[in-house]
Amino acid sequence: MLLLRRCQTLTRFGSRNTERHLRVPSAVASCAVRLWSSREEQRSQQHGRGLSWRHTLAGLLAGTGAVLAYGLHHHRHKAEQADSIGDKTATKDSTLPIFSQEEVTKHRTLADRVWVTYKGGVYDITDFVAMHPGGDKIMLAAGGAIEPFWALYAVHNQEHVLDMLAEYKVGELSAEDQKKQQTVKSSDPYSSDPERHPVLRINNLKPFNAEPPPEILSDSYITPSALFFKRNHLPVPQVDPASYRLHVEGLPGGALTLSLDDLKKFPKHTITATLQCAGNRRSEMNKVKQVKGLNWGIAAISNATWSGARLRDVLQAAGYHPDVAQWARHVQFEGLDKDVTGTTYGASIPLNKAVSEEGDVLLAYEMNGEDIPADHGYPVRAVVPGTVGARNVKWLGKVIVSAEESNSHWQQNDYKGFSPGTDWDTVDFKTAPAIQELPIQSAITQPADGAVVDRSAEEVTIKGYAWSGGGREVVRVDVSLDGGKTWQVAQLRGGERGQASSPGRAWAWKLWEVTAPLPPAAQELELVCKAVDDSYNMQPDSVPPIWNLRGVLSNAWHRVNVKIREDEDEDGDEE
Amino acid sequence: MLLLRRCQTLTRFGSRNTERHLRVPSAVASCAVRLWSSREEQRSQQHGRGLSWRHTLAGLLAGTGAVLAYGLHHHRHKAEQADSIGDKTATKDSTLPIFSQEEVTKHRTLADRVWVTYKGGVYDITDFVAMHPGGDKIMLAAGGAIEPFWALYAVHNQEHVLDMLAEYKVGELSAEDQKKQQTVKSSDPYSSDPERHPVLRINNLKPFNAEPPPEILSDSYITPSALFFKRNHLPVPQVDPASYRLHVEGLPGGALTLSLDDLKKFPKHTITATLQCAGNRRSEMNKVKQVKGLNWGIAAISNATWSGARLRDVLQAAGYHPDVAQWARHVQFEGLDKDVTGTTYGASIPLNKAVSEEGDVLLAYEMNGEDIPADHGYPVRAVVPGTVGARNVKWLGKVIVSAEESNSHWQQNDYKGFSPGTDWDTVDFKTAPAIQELPIQSAITQPADGAVVDRSAEEVTIKGYAWSGGGREVVRVDVSLDGGKTWQVAQLRGGERGQASSPGRAWAWKLWEVTAPLPPAAQELELVCKAVDDSYNMQPDSVPPIWNLRGVLSNAWHRVNVKIREDEDEDGDEE
Repeated sequence: MLLLRRCQTLTRFGSRNTERHLRVPSAVASCAVRLWSSREEQRSQQHGRGLSWRHTLAGLLAGTGAVLAYGLHHHRHKAEQADSIGDKTATKDSTLPIFSQEEVTKHRTLADRVWVTYKGGVYDITDFVAMHPGGDKIMLAAGGAIEPFWALYAVHNQEHVLDMLAEYKVGELSAEDQKKQQTVKSSDPYSSDPERHPVLRINNLKPFNAEPPPEILSDSYITPSALFFKRNHLPVPQVDPASYRLHVEGLPGGALTLSLDDLKKFPKHTITATLQCAGNRRSEMNKVKQVKGLNWGIAAISNATWSGARLRDVLQAAGYHPDVAQWARHVQFEGLDKDVTGTTYGASIPLNKAVSEEGDVLLAYEMNGEDIPADHGYPVRAVVPGTVGARNVKWLGKVIVSAEESNSHWQQNDYKGFSPGTDWDTVDFKTAPAIQELPIQSAITQPADGAVVDRSAEEVTIKGYAWSGGGREVVRVDVSLDGGKTWQVAQLRGGERGQASSPGRAWAWKLWEVTAPLPPAAQELELVCKAVDDSYNMQPDSVPPIWNLRGVLSNAWHRVNVKIREDEDEDGDEE
Repeated sequence: MLLLRRCQTLTRFGSRNTERHLRVPSAVASCAVRLWSSREEQRSQQHGRGLSWRHTLAGLLAGTGAVLAYGLHHHRHKAEQADSIGDKTATKDSTLPIFSQEEVTKHRTLADRVWVTYKGGVYDITDFVAMHPGGDKIMLAAGGAIEPFWALYAVHNQEHVLDMLAEYKVGELSAEDQKKQQTVKSSDPYSSDPERHPVLRINNLKPFNAEPPPEILSDSYITPSALFFKRNHLPVPQVDPASYRLHVEGLPGGALTLSLDDLKKFPKHTITATLQCAGNRRSEMNKVKQVKGLNWGIAAISNATWSGARLRDVLQAAGYHPDVAQWARHVQFEGLDKDVTGTTYGASIPLNKAVSEEGDVLLAYEMNGEDIPADHGYPVRAVVPGTVGARNVKWLGKVIVSAEESNSHWQQNDYKGFSPGTDWDTVDFKTAPAIQELPIQSAITQPADGAVVDRSAEEVTIKGYAWSGGGREVVRVDVSLDGGKTWQVAQLRGGERGQASSPGRAWAWKLWEVTAPLPPAAQELELVCKAVDDSYNMQPDSVPPIWNLRGVLSNAWHRVNVKIREDEDEDGDEE
């Protein structure tokens, strides 16, 4: 509850929206908010023009022992910033006392006061502990060096963080102990992250979160793996396929341990399934009022083929029997990706989804016909079609049949939806269910917002994607050129309606397209799309009524403004 | 296609909205539209003030052999109207020739011209056939009396219908043949319909369609059977429980025939499930633009307990085996209620819903702990929880496992959703899936629209219902007092979240309630509610973008306007 109240503080201060104020709101927990210097800059970024993000604030999302980190600076500007930060803290202050490491180590609790070292300086951060955006996690560094922890989360690599730290300086570490520290210097836990395709738009570098440009997304029904959106919560673990083991626990027969080869002996099942991040289109919520989370555009969604063993088959091999459903309700997944405390990424899904023949849940080892790439969970990930990306646990280490949901931060205190009237003062995460199936969604991938169409083109082609969770098939996409006053029906691509093996198993998106004549009188067009699934669920009209403090489930009509340029020989005006 | 084009004609003419013009638009097929003399009168009806509906037009919905009828006149005004209609057509015209029945009978095709008799008059209706709102169904009467057909559909019992008919009069039936007709006079097929509770608001008398007053609806979590909304498509059949037989067909083992006692030998299964008509809240769509169908308010939804045999168990007893799913995709239901041609009401559901253990589909013989009442399907009806009312076939006579959907009018050419841009000229029913699961829904049952709250009350209590199809549980209802600008979360009644036996089996609605202080400055309140289900589907904000030509799936935010009356001693104004 304390954590939540602190976040509210951030929201209030954050609205002042200037860099100087950022040092105050950073003294809060569990929040990651991006503040923009101006509406103009925000718009530029929305349109993908790649300006640097100067005035930003972010923090750590601390849960029951797991941490989400949000990077802040555009990666192109990283190198120079790192230099200036290094200079700042390297400065010695000869008026301050010298402490030994032994002395520093005595300060590991709030009662003894909390000291840390950073680049040879000694800092008493006791008064900052309660304000740390990453929560209690900061206590892990108490009495020692903070470099190994900061290395894990690029969020700290910012000038204002160093400015704050400087205020708490109480002394210098002895030269002798500084030398000792050199020998145990931390390495960057992200240094072994894989190479990524340069076209990806990076929302956060460490952990890596990126989406493809929308116009490329809708080029292929199957998204090439390199372009598939990446949403990592932690460093990509290095997994040796030879020594990889999957542990299946919680069933009456005891634990089952499978090698990769063992897993491949189960019948191989292939599905085409779209995955979507709960935060897809969060940037549209940020325009209404700031939310906590990565500022995703419309492309935190992609479609791939996945092959692997059915979870159902593996559970049966591990002793699952319908009687188990009398006490078990959930299947938990644990990833091999870990935070600095050793806490792994985790999530769970309902048992009936896991064991249903029609649930099509896979322990997948192939993506688009090849080994799953490192960023997507090599060598094995859960693929839970129709379900929010966060439950499709990558680098899968453990499967646990359980009476309880996963106890992970991401299941309990994140990835849930709330009323627009709920703020960080009033939120109670227990009142909302963990997001599983996602609601109906669609977006316009072409043209881009702000695009210009020549009058001489006579018509405009509008493209996009549409998808719904829970295996509900998209049956129609309506497109408007006049902001929603009149509608026409788009052409769907991606299979005829009703071709799923049975109702409720339409896991893949539909791409869609409309070509319409340019309205004669219009000078600009407000393009809008909205989709309908086979339960006839529709997208809400507007963002504010579905706004929520975490910026998830952003599925209002998607709107794109396009200008019509009149032909110069007819309508040119030199003034 | 011809039928569809005719309907468009109606829509165009209908907008002129005067009684004289009604005679032109009635010359169309497959439409039933209510035209109001004034907006005022329409509003009065919405508010349940029970004015007579003077300026109305309706027709028959003709499908592949099945007919939907829509009544027009408020039942209290029936008797007097019937009298005046009788007078009008009883008048003999001595200048016209006398025909024998034998002569009339020769005119049974468009080539021979189409003649009918009515109350001793002979009418050449050849030129009207193509314009008949009920479509080709009119040809059933060719060469004979139309009284037996009109008796089935109260829609014809209107002055303007008689006015039209009068224009086609070509002669008198011979006195001798008139006498013969008396001996075969039709009886009213609705004469054996059961008594109904007087509190019900009748949308149509024959067939009977009625809903309870909203404020009564939300009084009980379980709706008393007498108050449960009634939606009949045809006369209520009289079924003798002793001779009742249910036929189960289409499975490899051959047909299975079960008596009511046989059915009761299967394990008895009880569920609480909400049923909703696809047309619930259609009246809100009518306010945007006229649609075809009964003008339901917000109460074509109710909640009951249902007990019976599981369809799954009965299908297994009839030889169902998973191999059947290799060729079969649907389970068709046929009612015992019949139209004049002997065509029964019919519908189908997906096979996987029917056979799933978690689908909970019942062949129910009890409603709220008693024999199912006549209006609700005595002795046996299908209860398909989570699925639109229309598939919960009453007076169930036949269950057919099939590769195809039901061929009935109601499955093929009705109960489907379309884009707001689709009209009767462009609609192609094959392009849309039959409605099965319904989308998220909620409405405010108290206070009523137009209610007045005294300032001295200091607060207002808002009540309503919320429900979603497909077993998706309602997890939150947001309520606004200011038209949707700010929101608060309602208290849900009807079980804690997650208490369904497993996810996807939340078949029953939630009632909800909010008590909020009256905003100090407000003179009126625009109350709004919107619900969220556990797939986080939300209701669309507004009606126009989900408007569709049949007026189904009306699930936009529900809005109710309430006036605040200032206390007279403080703010009284005598002017």
